[in-house]
Amino acid sequence: MGDLIVFGDWGTSRLRLSLFDGDAKLAETDGPGIGALTASPAETLLQALAPWRAEHDLKRVILCGMAGSRSGVIEAPYAECPADAAAWLVQAAELALDGLDIRVAPGLAGTAANGAPDVMRGEEAQIFGAMALRPDLAQGERWFVLPGTHSKWARVRDGRVLGFQTFLTGELFALLTERSSLLMGADRAENADESAAGFDQGLARAQEGHPIAALFEARSAQLRAGRSGAWAQGYLSGLLIGSEVAEALRGADTRAVTVIGAAALAARYSPALAAGSVVSETLSGEACVLAGLRLFAANRS
Amino acid sequence: MGDLIVFGDWGTSRLRLSLFDGDAKLAETDGPGIGALTASPAETLLQALAPWRAEHDLKRVILCGMAGSRSGVIEAPYAECPADAAAWLVQAAELALDGLDIRVAPGLAGTAANGAPDVMRGEEAQIFGAMALRPDLAQGERWFVLPGTHSKWARVRDGRVLGFQTFLTGELFALLTERSSLLMGADRAENADESAAGFDQGLARAQEGHPIAALFEARSAQLRAGRSGAWAQGYLSGLLIGSEVAEALRGADTRAVTVIGAAALAARYSPALAAGSVVSETLSGEACVLAGLRLFAANRS
Repeated sequence: MGDLIVFGDWGTSRLRLSLFDGDAKLAETDGPGIGALTASPAETLLQALAPWRAEHDLKRVILCGMAGSRSGVIEAPYAECPADAAAWLVQAAELALDGLDIRVAPGLAGTAANGAPDVMRGEEAQIFGAMALRPDLAQGERWFVLPGTHSKWARVRDGRVLGFQTFLTGELFALLTERSSLLMGADRAENADESAAGFDQGLARAQEGHPIAALFEARSAQLRAGRSGAWAQGYLSGLLIGSEVAEALRGADTRAVTVIGAAALAARYSPALAAGSVVSETLSGEACVLAGLRLFAANRS
Repeated sequence: MGDLIVFGDWGTSRLRLSLFDGDAKLAETDGPGIGALTASPAETLLQALAPWRAEHDLKRVILCGMAGSRSGVIEAPYAECPADAAAWLVQAAELALDGLDIRVAPGLAGTAANGAPDVMRGEEAQIFGAMALRPDLAQGERWFVLPGTHSKWARVRDGRVLGFQTFLTGELFALLTERSSLLMGADRAENADESAAGFDQGLARAQEGHPIAALFEARSAQLRAGRSGAWAQGYLSGLLIGSEVAEALRGADTRAVTVIGAAALAARYSPALAAGSVVSETLSGEACVLAGLRLFAANRS
């Protein structure tokens, strides 16, 4: 039982904990995100671990994500780009909590293509984990794309993250579909065909390069072209993802792209990437984050 | 007293009524927008008019805007572009209500520069009103720009609206500053210097043509560059207005621009227009809408 370890990905909207004995996953559990806590982060963590601790003599917990933010368990620094896995690993924050040895991965701070400062917390574990799982991805230059509420585009050369850029895509999609005047309420029912047709139209608009101008078509197409709410939702998804991909790739000198994320979301990026003449592959976000957290376990020994 | 008339601009967020005796404004009053009604539109209108009707023998009311939408007083059609004032005037909807003769201006339906269908309700009264006030604006080709929650860019040649495009700028700014993760809460206090510096930076980003990529800088500049919430608000304003102007003018063959709107908002468009090598002038939105509504009064006689 000496190899018992808990890995945790604690983001703004969700805590996901996995209990491992060596390479064997014994259990997993979910909890509230750092943005939705009702108790302190430490109390929340101990509560989530209590059932496992009742059965096992747990000592080690390794966390990444917003767990290391100012409102997390302990503030972990940002490793500055360019950064490889070794530079990232040495900056972990450590905390002794109720007999547990808790390590929290640092985030990354870097500069976007346009020169703006940028930050990530959690995605770097997936990026370094992906290269641990697949050493070929640490050769040469490529983009890692991590779709989500805040999509990240990280430029990596020979295993070193050079810089990255955050796109508000997922959050903007939620604001526009749930809070704006663009979706007209009456007809939001799921309709896969309508949604797919809207997505294609949004993707085509994104290629024209006028995304701000194109937003209102979600509404006017319902008013004047007989489109449904499902179409409009698909349209906004295609427009935002397509614009993200087009803007990220514009002027980029490499078109090698690895997407890390859930299959359903990654599938929405494939046609947008194909429209940019990119052939991409997709890796599981969960597998990558575990591989990234495992680097800390190996690093201690 | 035969020339008593009420003009009303009834939008989504506000009702504004003005009582005129010929050219002399006797009074004005505000009420709730069509999107915020607690009673029926007809009841709301009669309530707002009641104090005036107690003193005057009112007969005529002329309204524009969302008053003519499906959820308004009476549904008015859309006049199809290209449309001049005469084509617009003949499509008014009429309603007899409690002894009042109510006329509601039609909206306009047209096509945006990218071929998408588009609609407006209320702004057309300002555009035709502007040309009634200033006949020189009905000569040659120009843009009328009406900033707001849903900004409108209308292309007009020789007094005829050829087509127009709606930008979600104002609504998007409100969503991003009030509902998103970009403004970090602690430091939103007004600070004119910070806000102006942020606006300039947002405007500069807009010129780069990657607006979706540039959104997140509002947050990361607070996290990593010591910027305040006031800066971030200014940044988003500059980025959105600058992107609206840049996208609207890209590929346009005329750079003659007339802005119709409130002075404070129009002042935010001037530097963005100047960045696009446009010399613009600004007309009062209130004066233009009254001039547009007055066309109906003249039309009846």
